[in-house]
Amino acid sequence: MIRHTVVFRLKHEKGSEAERLFLANAQRLASIPGVGGFEQLRQVSPKNDYDFGFSMEFADEAAYAGYNDHPDHVAFVRDHWVPEVAAFLEIDYVPLAPVENGS
Amino acid sequence: MIRHTVVFRLKHEKGSEAERLFLANAQRLASIPGVGGFEQLRQVSPKNDYDFGFSMEFADEAAYAGYNDHPDHVAFVRDHWVPEVAAFLEIDYVPLAPVENGS
Repeated sequence: MIRHTVVFRLKHEKGSEAERLFLANAQRLASIPGVGGFEQLRQVSPKNDYDFGFSMEFADEAAYAGYNDHPDHVAFVRDHWVPEVAAFLEIDYVPLAPVENGS
Repeated sequence: MIRHTVVFRLKHEKGSEAERLFLANAQRLASIPGVGGFEQLRQVSPKNDYDFGFSMEFADEAAYAGYNDHPDHVAFVRDHWVPEVAAFLEIDYVPLAPVENGS
């Protein structure tokens, strides 16, 4: 399992209609084949200056690549992500087996 | 629900015994009251320079505060986090209700 996350801040005013529409459009990413566990999140820690996050899970690298290359993802990045996002950081995780024998 | 995450890089050499021990010690955080869904993760995106992540979930702010103030957490931060972590970013999420009516 690969968990793909991105934490970001929009150019739009907080609580604006433009913000709402961005999030509504992003909801379509959940329907791209291979995407599981899609979440839209609000970032609430005062220790960074991002406002939102998306999280999704892929079974493997092939599913992740299929998402990246999917026309709906490519169109979303071109039409919404690039023009509307002010700053972002992508973080991808895979599970780590529990480490034993702490001291 | 509040999902508390931290992505980080250790001072230790990758794959070292010191790295293994750090992760083993951190496993104890999962036993602190109020901590749910504790995960140790490997960060795999080439788009940032962090190597690991922890993720955990709290029912509410009170549970999160109880974790922060718990002696086991305070001791872990003092004895392991501060001396052994080279760089980190805390990101906290709460679920966002699905936004409708994309266009």
